[in-house]
Amino acid sequence: MSNIRQFTDRLDALSFDRMYGGDFFLTWEKSPQELEAVFTVADALRHLREHNISSRLFDSGLAVSLFRDNSTRTRFSFASACNLLGLEVQDLDEGKSQIAHGETVRETANMISFMADVIGIRDDMYIGKGNAYMREVAHSVRQGYADGVLEQIPTLVNLQCDIDHPTQTMADALHLIHEFGGIENLRGKKLAMTWAYSPSYGKPLSVPQGVIALMTRLGMDVTLAHPPGYEVMDEVLQVARSNAHEQGCSFTVMNSMQDAFRDADVVYPKSWAPFTAMEKRTELYGNGDFTGIDALERQLLAQNSLHRDWECTEDMMRLTKRGSALYLHCLPADISGVSCAAGEVAASVFDRYRTPLYKQASYKPYIIAAMIFLAKARNPQKALSCLESSGVKRWKKADCACYCQ
Amino acid sequence: MSNIRQFTDRLDALSFDRMYGGDFFLTWEKSPQELEAVFTVADALRHLREHNISSRLFDSGLAVSLFRDNSTRTRFSFASACNLLGLEVQDLDEGKSQIAHGETVRETANMISFMADVIGIRDDMYIGKGNAYMREVAHSVRQGYADGVLEQIPTLVNLQCDIDHPTQTMADALHLIHEFGGIENLRGKKLAMTWAYSPSYGKPLSVPQGVIALMTRLGMDVTLAHPPGYEVMDEVLQVARSNAHEQGCSFTVMNSMQDAFRDADVVYPKSWAPFTAMEKRTELYGNGDFTGIDALERQLLAQNSLHRDWECTEDMMRLTKRGSALYLHCLPADISGVSCAAGEVAASVFDRYRTPLYKQASYKPYIIAAMIFLAKARNPQKALSCLESSGVKRWKKADCACYCQ
Amino acid sequence: MSNIRQFTDRLDALSFDRMYGGDFFLTWEKSPQELEAVFTVADALRHLREHNISSRLFDSGLAVSLFRDNSTRTRFSFASACNLLGLEVQDLDEGKSQIAHGETVRETANMISFMADVIGIRDDMYIGKGNAYMREVAHSVRQGYADGVLEQIPTLVNLQCDIDHPTQTMADALHLIHEFGGIENLRGKKLAMTWAYSPSYGKPLSVPQGVIALMTRLGMDVTLAHPPGYEVMDEVLQVARSNAHEQGCSFTVMNSMQDAFRDADVVYPKSWAPFTAMEKRTELYGNGDFTGIDALERQLLAQNSLHRDWECTEDMMRLTKRGSALYLHCLPADISGVSCAAGEVAASVFDRYRTPLYKQASYKPYIIAAMIFLAKARNPQKALSCLESSGVKRWKKADCACYCQ
Repeated sequence: MSNIRQFTDRLDALSFDRMYGGDFFLTWEKSPQELEAVFTVADALRHLREHNISSRLFDSGLAVSLFRDNSTRTRFSFASACNLLGLEVQDLDEGKSQIAHGETVRETANMISFMADVIGIRDDMYIGKGNAYMREVAHSVRQGYADGVLEQIPTLVNLQCDIDHPTQTMADALHLIHEFGGIENLRGKKLAMTWAYSPSYGKPLSVPQGVIALMTRLGMDVTLAHPPGYEVMDEVLQVARSNAHEQGCSFTVMNSMQDAFRDADVVYPKSWAPFTAMEKRTELYGNGDFTGIDALERQLLAQNSLHRDWECTEDMMRLTKRGSALYLHCLPADISGVSCAAGEVAASVFDRYRTPLYKQASYKPYIIAAMIFLAKARNPQKALSCLESSGVKRWKKADCACYCQ
Repeated sequence: MSNIRQFTDRLDALSFDRMYGGDFFLTWEKSPQELEAVFTVADALRHLREHNISSRLFDSGLAVSLFRDNSTRTRFSFASACNLLGLEVQDLDEGKSQIAHGETVRETANMISFMADVIGIRDDMYIGKGNAYMREVAHSVRQGYADGVLEQIPTLVNLQCDIDHPTQTMADALHLIHEFGGIENLRGKKLAMTWAYSPSYGKPLSVPQGVIALMTRLGMDVTLAHPPGYEVMDEVLQVARSNAHEQGCSFTVMNSMQDAFRDADVVYPKSWAPFTAMEKRTELYGNGDFTGIDALERQLLAQNSLHRDWECTEDMMRLTKRGSALYLHCLPADISGVSCAAGEVAASVFDRYRTPLYKQASYKPYIIAAMIFLAKARNPQKALSCLESSGVKRWKKADCACYCQ
Repeated sequence: MSNIRQFTDRLDALSFDRMYGGDFFLTWEKSPQELEAVFTVADALRHLREHNISSRLFDSGLAVSLFRDNSTRTRFSFASACNLLGLEVQDLDEGKSQIAHGETVRETANMISFMADVIGIRDDMYIGKGNAYMREVAHSVRQGYADGVLEQIPTLVNLQCDIDHPTQTMADALHLIHEFGGIENLRGKKLAMTWAYSPSYGKPLSVPQGVIALMTRLGMDVTLAHPPGYEVMDEVLQVARSNAHEQGCSFTVMNSMQDAFRDADVVYPKSWAPFTAMEKRTELYGNGDFTGIDALERQLLAQNSLHRDWECTEDMMRLTKRGSALYLHCLPADISGVSCAAGEVAASVFDRYRTPLYKQASYKPYIIAAMIFLAKARNPQKALSCLESSGVKRWKKADCACYCQ
């Protein structure tokens, strides 16, 4: 028996009116209650799916995806979320497109949006560009709607930018909520977001940045640890500090993986590139300086290789609370002796946490669907209740072909 | 409150029986009443969408798209139209396909059509090829249906060929109908379809050809203007002349952009390649003569550069009726100082007409959907009425998750 | 009037309980009654489509496709089957994916399956790899379900592997069932699966292997004929011999096309590569030995060219039963004088059988849909009856827009 009341009652206690008709760019632009509404709707949608009840908010409609970087997890999560709500994904593959040299973002945004309900964008490669691009798209379609060009305003979902990766970190947080038995239980838990060695270079900063900004918001004691030189974006550090202050928890930056791991409830060891190097790379690309890019890459690999000891080994794990902190990763991980000679994590550690890691990833489709649901349902509690009471089956597996029985 | 009667009443006054089960290749193969039926159904479908009423004519079904040239606008318009009617687009990407050397069009057409309700094709690069290819596909699937291979005949929609671009020009015309307050108000209006300078070469002729053929059909006084040497296909000139004769309007060809713009109600300045050059290029490709193609390209660019004064400037616009003709373009435009040093249109002109240009483009999904609707609904009036009265919501945004309320 | 009873009555007489929740890897892993259930459900689904009744078993859901080789027929057949059942296809394009070097199959399989109901894979290039890969994917998602990572177990459908091509051969068999007027009429009919000359090399063995294994299962007298050196996989020969023994029919291997064609009711002349050469190629690829691969290719082409007389000519056809055996091919065929100078079949033979060949291909979408249906409907008879009695129209073409009337 499904009972959606457990979720709608929680929603009744929260204030999230601003989310209807809104976009999702950065977690720190949302109030704590708005974030909790996303977690709650994600759980409610998973509950409906477990009970084989259709969650289609749309009878037809398009969701446009634009991936400016390769992606498996996020691409499938977005496709799954949209399908769950009744939207068909249409990929804007810039290679197949006739986007003219000099064509404005405003023009492209309108041309793809005549029947678009959602636009999901991944654009994480260049500092100062990805998030700005998303905002320009969102602004353009609002203008198009105001001008009578579009019949509806597509909701923009940030599928990873240069600053934040909200669908990833919200999924990470929902995983923690379930592991610790409630959002209130995150308060006071220690989370170590640490750099880790990787033989590849130039990994985006959006995950560590997003994690420190979100987890301090949820009242966790967060440590950011990395070798000197691997600093993240300054404005996100400010956000984390300010959150810690507001929430009465702590945010600490240090240069020792050991110290960060010590007594941690949760560890998130992951490689990333220095912010300043990414800034420089953005500039080099802008100038078309490919010799400079090659030189930068060699320098970054050499710099990484000085910190091979930043690996999440069994010894490291023993430093954590009762030696059994929860290990997180956004996947794919660089596993020593498996995907590379030496990497972010020892094979035995990774193997031990494989099932929780997969569960962590499994929340992403529901988080994306919840972000869309809250932007598209004027009264989400009533929408969820009606989905449940209409009883339309997602999959007519049982004994009868009728959707309603 | 939706009131679909305004559209079904207009349809009742029109004769368009032949469209059920038919294809859409060229606008001049359709009667004026059939064209008006397309405009009317397009408006009706937009009306339903504005009133959040589902327009799904299909519970399931496939629409196959084949783009032999890059496309953003037409690709998204086709996807939007199909989704609106309940069809899922499956792209025939010839690069990923196993279409054997020498495999017949007839074979491929049947192999992709076992469950296809619609086939949309863009094939505009080679003179004498694109439209012929579409007809061969349409003929093949009719044969397949007659032979008991296919359960249904997919409707073929021309998404741009070497001769015509009907989904573009019909959208252009619907934009004019709305701007001038009715199809009857197009009669006697002056439209200047003129060549314009572009620093690129080899742009298709289907838009100017389609425009002169369609707008004369609708009773407009049409001028085609281009530098000597930029002649379009002779058979389309004949169509335009014959239309003008039948409709009691005028069709004039001249070599002066100024004279064409003078006193025009509508201007459509756009670059294209000389028909004879496109014919030659087709022949060179056929012979695999890449040296010849390179030489031809250099020659075409040189030829273009002799006519840099064919630009839609503010001075040019001042020549038009009250200095405020409606400016049309199929987009993307070559905007001087924006997308190129010197191009088809001055930035200030383009900027002033940005919103109407986007509206012009916004009709294309509805035009495509209307073409499909008329081919697939035996009694479109009844189908539209039933969609309205069944009241299935496209988007359950309001207060309830029920599709019908 | 639709009457689904003719199909559900036949299903009532069959035992196929194991298929619910199962995968489809190889035809010889299924019982004869299970195979007959697939044929029966395929016919039932075609019947529903002919009567314009929706076959959607799903209100929403994803089907993941992974094609490691180019494909038109199978790609469109899979898309058609999934759409027919209400599933949206999401392609796992490994080129666009972020599948890390060393990322396990287990990880990828889980990451794409959070909301996947079906996974279809084509992986036929390397001996010992394709089928093994599919099983690893299927095992991984079962593990993911057991671990609480996935909400459902996606059904794996083999869209062609190194061993078998079950969706092709089952479609071939359903074509024979219809041509001969019933599955019982296949018993005692002679089928010649023969090698044929092709100017290309390295064609997969899965079709000849799948055909000899399936058709012996259905009681046909099967001959496999090829030049010396073109042997197929030994374990499949064992399957065919064992089937023939069990079914009381015959299975013969010979080196003469003429002898195989003599008195045959059905001929299936088709090129393939020697099994040992494919094994060697797999090894060379594994070692990255591209010089070795080039040499092997030259050797295979030279070897092929010694057997240009293995062509399905009119003279060959005259050897068959009454000179009018049914000619089968999985398409595309190498047609002499059409797609190549000399190939598998004479143009006049191919042309004469064009319509039956297209019909043969037309069964594949229904076979795939039936495999999925039997894995997803706990009581297929009741599901089919309810689809019929609910009367939801697939296409509201008639007079009314209502899905149910």
